[in-house]
Amino acid sequence: MDEAILDVVVIGAGTAGLAALREIRKRSERFALIDDGKWGTTCARVGCMPSKALIESANAFHRRRDFDVFGIRGAESLRADVPAVLVRVRALRDQFVSGVRKLTDGLGERAITGRARIVAPDCVEVNGRRLRARRIIVATGSEPVVPPPWRALGERLLTTDNLFERDDLPARIAVVGMGAIGAEVAQALSRLGIEVTAFGSSELVAGLSDPQVNAALLASLRQEFPVHVGAPAVVSAADDGSVRVSNGRQQVQADAVLAALGRRPVLAGLGLDTLGVPLDENGLPSVDPTTMRVGASQVFLVGDANAQAPLQHEAADEGHIAGLIASGAVARRFRRRVPLSIVFCDPDVAVVGRRFSQLDGSDVLVGEYRFERQGRARIEQRARGVLRVYAARGIGLLLGAELCAPAGAHLAHLLALAMERTLTVHDLLRMPFYHPVLEEGLRSALRELASQLPPCSESDLAGCGPIGADAIE
Amino acid sequence: MDEAILDVVVIGAGTAGLAALREIRKRSERFALIDDGKWGTTCARVGCMPSKALIESANAFHRRRDFDVFGIRGAESLRADVPAVLVRVRALRDQFVSGVRKLTDGLGERAITGRARIVAPDCVEVNGRRLRARRIIVATGSEPVVPPPWRALGERLLTTDNLFERDDLPARIAVVGMGAIGAEVAQALSRLGIEVTAFGSSELVAGLSDPQVNAALLASLRQEFPVHVGAPAVVSAADDGSVRVSNGRQQVQADAVLAALGRRPVLAGLGLDTLGVPLDENGLPSVDPTTMRVGASQVFLVGDANAQAPLQHEAADEGHIAGLIASGAVARRFRRRVPLSIVFCDPDVAVVGRRFSQLDGSDVLVGEYRFERQGRARIEQRARGVLRVYAARGIGLLLGAELCAPAGAHLAHLLALAMERTLTVHDLLRMPFYHPVLEEGLRSALRELASQLPPCSESDLAGCGPIGADAIE
Repeated sequence: MDEAILDVVVIGAGTAGLAALREIRKRSERFALIDDGKWGTTCARVGCMPSKALIESANAFHRRRDFDVFGIRGAESLRADVPAVLVRVRALRDQFVSGVRKLTDGLGERAITGRARIVAPDCVEVNGRRLRARRIIVATGSEPVVPPPWRALGERLLTTDNLFERDDLPARIAVVGMGAIGAEVAQALSRLGIEVTAFGSSELVAGLSDPQVNAALLASLRQEFPVHVGAPAVVSAADDGSVRVSNGRQQVQADAVLAALGRRPVLAGLGLDTLGVPLDENGLPSVDPTTMRVGASQVFLVGDANAQAPLQHEAADEGHIAGLIASGAVARRFRRRVPLSIVFCDPDVAVVGRRFSQLDGSDVLVGEYRFERQGRARIEQRARGVLRVYAARGIGLLLGAELCAPAGAHLAHLLALAMERTLTVHDLLRMPFYHPVLEEGLRSALRELASQLPPCSESDLAGCGPIGADAIE
Repeated sequence: MDEAILDVVVIGAGTAGLAALREIRKRSERFALIDDGKWGTTCARVGCMPSKALIESANAFHRRRDFDVFGIRGAESLRADVPAVLVRVRALRDQFVSGVRKLTDGLGERAITGRARIVAPDCVEVNGRRLRARRIIVATGSEPVVPPPWRALGERLLTTDNLFERDDLPARIAVVGMGAIGAEVAQALSRLGIEVTAFGSSELVAGLSDPQVNAALLASLRQEFPVHVGAPAVVSAADDGSVRVSNGRQQVQADAVLAALGRRPVLAGLGLDTLGVPLDENGLPSVDPTTMRVGASQVFLVGDANAQAPLQHEAADEGHIAGLIASGAVARRFRRRVPLSIVFCDPDVAVVGRRFSQLDGSDVLVGEYRFERQGRARIEQRARGVLRVYAARGIGLLLGAELCAPAGAHLAHLLALAMERTLTVHDLLRMPFYHPVLEEGLRSALRELASQLPPCSESDLAGCGPIGADAIE
């Protein structure tokens, strides 16, 4: 294998690398897939899947607080068995990892375990061997950001890499960082009965940029546990074996700290500097999102590793695009999907299309709906949160939305489809909204937008011709 | 008021009548609204809202069966306090009815309580007075079908008109009729700990027509309570004070029977025969769904009363259309929305667009997805149900769908938007699907459809131009 020139070498067997592999295998047997040994996607191993399993147990337990209102007695006898929750998390994770591992079964020696290094634009070194390849796809993923001094906390330092491995969790956990992962995990741990204190350096949490949606989320989270935002937190070991976390205004002692400061690309030692293209201060080259190519090279950088949109579905698309182009299937650019990001707090948080901070205020109309008064939400004891939809003046083209709302993940998909199809407010109002459903809250926000647009019709419904000879006089 | 000619008389202050009133009030003060005295919509009083409140308590209680798997202990101590559940149902119902009643506040003597009778195409009699009107909108709603002999059961006969009024419910209830209401209420009662036996005369339940989706729903329901379908049930009082229900093959004794045989228009004594138009065997005239007019008359028949699509959102549209035309705001026909019906069983049941029974099999492709293997559904312990999407051969135009699936109500809205916009399978596959979400099950069904269509591209993603001068060789 050393002497022959391969068609493609893929570095990293995560979501992006496997999506690339899928396309490459359709067209070539002359490839190699190199992984540093974890063999399982971030999503399945330490990301989406175990976190959702934790959240699901936590939400089911939290629901007991509504039981008395629902006419269900005995909720005071319920307790969360955290070790059992973690056993289930790992059991599910193992199933999902095993599903992913099957995708590389049968690759034989084309699957190589080792740390890869690019030594030239057409050459990768791994385990002391050199592989020459016409194209290289880099899909090395990301890892949690941990400030080096925190390492001194030892066992008291949690990240998503080790959280789900624990047999049990301590009574008090400080969560530092309130992005998507911090918000999800802090709420889940709190709901499982752990005394959580959360710190966020920005006033904005969970990836939101709309201050009103952010305020609704913070108010909701703060009914469950303290959330201190707007100042960076400093972490230090206390004499009594606990951890002290302070942002200068608030301070807390905890038994452990979860570092949820974000994830960064795994690029160290990869040799991107040998490609002869400029790298930014984080060591990242410029990557064209329509082709995933690094400059005009035959190297592709996809998934979390390029830090463009570190989301599973984007990683899959990026690997797919790179796989198609690198395997010679197509020589065209790809239009990327409408941006969609979801944080599985309760209520769900989502950003669709253009975010609030990307809008030009003067040309934008906002339709807002607060779920406090929504019928179905009240029946479900989930009447909180807010939905804000942004549309352009003129014909009312839908531009984006931010929301913190019950069933928000589902509302976000509906909005994403509408934006993918470049629909207007009036277009979307023509769909049927059943009753009673949470989607009716979206309709209210759309109607508020419609009321700000030039009158176009007396009705949401489309006409289909005049009334004929028997017309109403 | 007797002498003057009104612009519009609306008979019935339910969802359809109130939607008509809303348009009429924008343009005229010369109207009357007549109601037989219930003053509150079927939806709020005895329909959608109280049933959803019952279901929500029932589902919250049922969830305890997953608690051990989730790592939550103590579920055996939970019990459903059915009287308290019913108190909450009524409290919510009263709030919703009061919200609806506010819509007719301030109408003064234009709101008339009494039974209306049409005595001529331009004249309505009520409480011995005659009101002349240029147009009449009939929105008298529907009532539960109860075979007359069943009346002899007295207190042992339940319908949605009296179910929610009870202080408590008996230990054993037979539900006869497995349409939307029967399926929803039977499951809810069973989940609250009542011994439910359900009978359906058709093999198909919950409004489904696709045998495969129907089978999945039946299998799911039968894990919770017996469901006997395919033969009509006979009900009789037993000597010991119980009720005997038999379909000739299965027989059960119960403490009460819920008549869920459907609803029929309230038209008795209304005088539709004075309009001089043909009436069918049910006393119904022909009504144009694009105008809601009865023939070429100035009379409109809307909502459940016309038996076309007895659903709240359709009733609202029909009242809206009639109100616009009758008040002279427009003289055009309206295109109706894509059909959408949802039954809030668990898993949700929905029919979108064309139903299976309306399709021409040879020109139709089916994409199916079974949720047993869906990632998010497994995490949520909701991995059951099936989704079937129908598309036309050729370009793969989406035609319809039937489903029994977790979050099915939300998936149905997404499909409804796609069909409202006459999208193809490939169009819908271009939207972003987040991970992990139940919508990924829909994507799998769409991909199964795409695999049966002529190859159109290597990718779900759209292209946006060739790669330029620096092209991959």
